[in-house]
Amino acid sequence: MDDRIYFSYAKIHNTVKLLSEKIIESGYHADVIVAIGTGGFIPARILKTYIKLPILTVGLKLYDENNNPASRPKKIQWIDEVEQKITGKRVLLVDEVDDSRITLEYCLRELLRHDPEEIAVAVLHNKLKDKIGHYPDEIGRIYFGEELEDRWVVYPWDTIDIIDHEEKARLQNN
Amino acid sequence: MDDRIYFSYAKIHNTVKLLSEKIIESGYHADVIVAIGTGGFIPARILKTYIKLPILTVGLKLYDENNNPASRPKKIQWIDEVEQKITGKRVLLVDEVDDSRITLEYCLRELLRHDPEEIAVAVLHNKLKDKIGHYPDEIGRIYFGEELEDRWVVYPWDTIDIIDHEEKARLQNN
Repeated sequence: MDDRIYFSYAKIHNTVKLLSEKIIESGYHADVIVAIGTGGFIPARILKTYIKLPILTVGLKLYDENNNPASRPKKIQWIDEVEQKITGKRVLLVDEVDDSRITLEYCLRELLRHDPEEIAVAVLHNKLKDKIGHYPDEIGRIYFGEELEDRWVVYPWDTIDIIDHEEKARLQNN
Repeated sequence: MDDRIYFSYAKIHNTVKLLSEKIIESGYHADVIVAIGTGGFIPARILKTYIKLPILTVGLKLYDENNNPASRPKKIQWIDEVEQKITGKRVLLVDEVDDSRITLEYCLRELLRHDPEEIAVAVLHNKLKDKIGHYPDEIGRIYFGEELEDRWVVYPWDTIDIIDHEEKARLQNN
């Protein structure tokens, strides 16, 4: 076994459940989920099972065509500004991991320009490490399912051989 | 056990793998995946592992606030027409199931207005039943991972208790 952390789908599903319980217990009543693509798609869709809200998506990529880090995230798809779908709304922004925090900061600053009532952040995993990005002052509610040490995480949806992956996760009690 | 079909996440993942193999073997080289929300989010994200493409999303709902069927699908989020992100492109439209075909037909007719080069359809499951919706004549490539008899399907992301769900799926060899 290598040094990477493997998560099974069932473990991810239960981490989303835990995350949903933290959000509900805090009393935050969001109007809409905004999923950051593509890492946030699966957590957001599972979250919708526990917190029934419409899902909007924003697509970002942090790497260029040669898979090198870009200087800043590039928008793949964005919420149609004309319809101002988040203005005055309570938003729950969902991604899979708070790692460097660069994508989250970029995304939050862009969304704040649409004048939402509030934006809260919900991620499956918060990696315990120094962050390059920072949460804007407007962000008061940050939810995570689980904290992780700073190791490479392998999510089930990224795996080619799911049977092998689920077995590796099982051996790690994940 | 009731009459419903339960699918585990691992089975879904492998059905997406099979679907990707059918698409690749057919020689269809898409430029972009368009996922129909929210059922298509998880299949599309897994598909990206096997066919590396950007994912755009379109959000639709077929039911009104009282959970009654609406007369036609309502747009939750749509691709920004101004940027014409699919004009001249080869699109792979992804959803979880071809059931009544109403959502797929609606979505295809709307997307065809943006003048894509081609649109192909990829669904996890095709239910063997009379369809209410119809594929527009422009649609020549339709891929499905598996054909199912017309029974209620329980997808893992819709389940509250994932451990119980995965056990039910295991008993059905799913």
